[in-house]
Amino acid sequence: MANENTIKEEVTNQEEMNTTQDTTMESTETSNETIVNNEEQDELTKANEKIADLEQKVQEYENKLYRVQADFENYKRRVRLDQEAAQKYRAQSLISDMLSSIDNFERAMKIDAEDEKTKTLLQGMDMVYRGLIEALKNEGVEIIDAVGQQFDPQLHQAVMQVEDSEYESGVVIEQFQKGYKLKDRVIRPSMVKVNQ
Amino acid sequence: MANENTIKEEVTNQEEMNTTQDTTMESTETSNETIVNNEEQDELTKANEKIADLEQKVQEYENKLYRVQADFENYKRRVRLDQEAAQKYRAQSLISDMLSSIDNFERAMKIDAEDEKTKTLLQGMDMVYRGLIEALKNEGVEIIDAVGQQFDPQLHQAVMQVEDSEYESGVVIEQFQKGYKLKDRVIRPSMVKVNQ
Repeated sequence: MANENTIKEEVTNQEEMNTTQDTTMESTETSNETIVNNEEQDELTKANEKIADLEQKVQEYENKLYRVQADFENYKRRVRLDQEAAQKYRAQSLISDMLSSIDNFERAMKIDAEDEKTKTLLQGMDMVYRGLIEALKNEGVEIIDAVGQQFDPQLHQAVMQVEDSEYESGVVIEQFQKGYKLKDRVIRPSMVKVNQ
Repeated sequence: MANENTIKEEVTNQEEMNTTQDTTMESTETSNETIVNNEEQDELTKANEKIADLEQKVQEYENKLYRVQADFENYKRRVRLDQEAAQKYRAQSLISDMLSSIDNFERAMKIDAEDEKTKTLLQGMDMVYRGLIEALKNEGVEIIDAVGQQFDPQLHQAVMQVEDSEYESGVVIEQFQKGYKLKDRVIRPSMVKVNQ
């Protein structure tokens, strides 16, 4: 568009000048002027080609720049999401590794304390146990609700099915092993008995 | 450089043509040609200005593009380092939270097992304890060496100093509380007695 306008303007100017100006140059100069004029037209054509090339180059750089900037923004967003997820589930590996010890802990404490010494030991162990569970809770670990809940394949793993008219259909009626979630992610489903 | 060469060429061409060509145009046309020539020179000047502008623009885009690309690369490198560090020390918070429970665990187990029941309980608890320590080790947790080591303020916290000729100078002779490292990072220094 800019080029077209320039050409139109030029044509108009030439016509105006043709009607208002008179001859002032000698014949010998005419030839040189004409040649120079042709030369200048050549040069102008080259200049206009160069302008077109450069304008294309500018356009290419502009596109490339936008693309790189868009890539950069996408990368930043993805990194932010990755970092959030990594932060959210950061302790998952250690927690998973700890679960069998927590199971053993609970099993070992299911002992009848008869003498004072065993009672004292059990009390101490109960304090340790609650401290560990508290540390896990602080990290976002939750025990999955099971007994009395509707069976949910996302949270519960059915290892036994019974038909018991005392309970509603599809309800978890017993838990064999505790399940754990880390925030919204199930680390280990609860192993349960379900009523059909 | 390209511009200079073009100008030189043009001048040479003009001189050649001045000597080989003759007058072929009428006087009335001369005036118009001269004006058109001026017009074209104006246009050429404008075109050259535009070329200069565009070349500057291309240069600016080129610089901008290099800058954005360099920023992008730096960002990627920083993110990689951040992610490595986040991954390396991911469980630090949970580990720190667990240390007092581990202390209590060790304290509670320092009991004389007399009857069989207490012995069984202690054996079960020892298994749980070793399971937890194993899980911590898998995450990169190490117990800091203390007794018999040279005192190191990076690893040990001196809570007591004695002068005992039986031991070498600056040696840790007793530990009051275990210290822990997570990989190369001290989570809690070892609390010790040092020989002056």
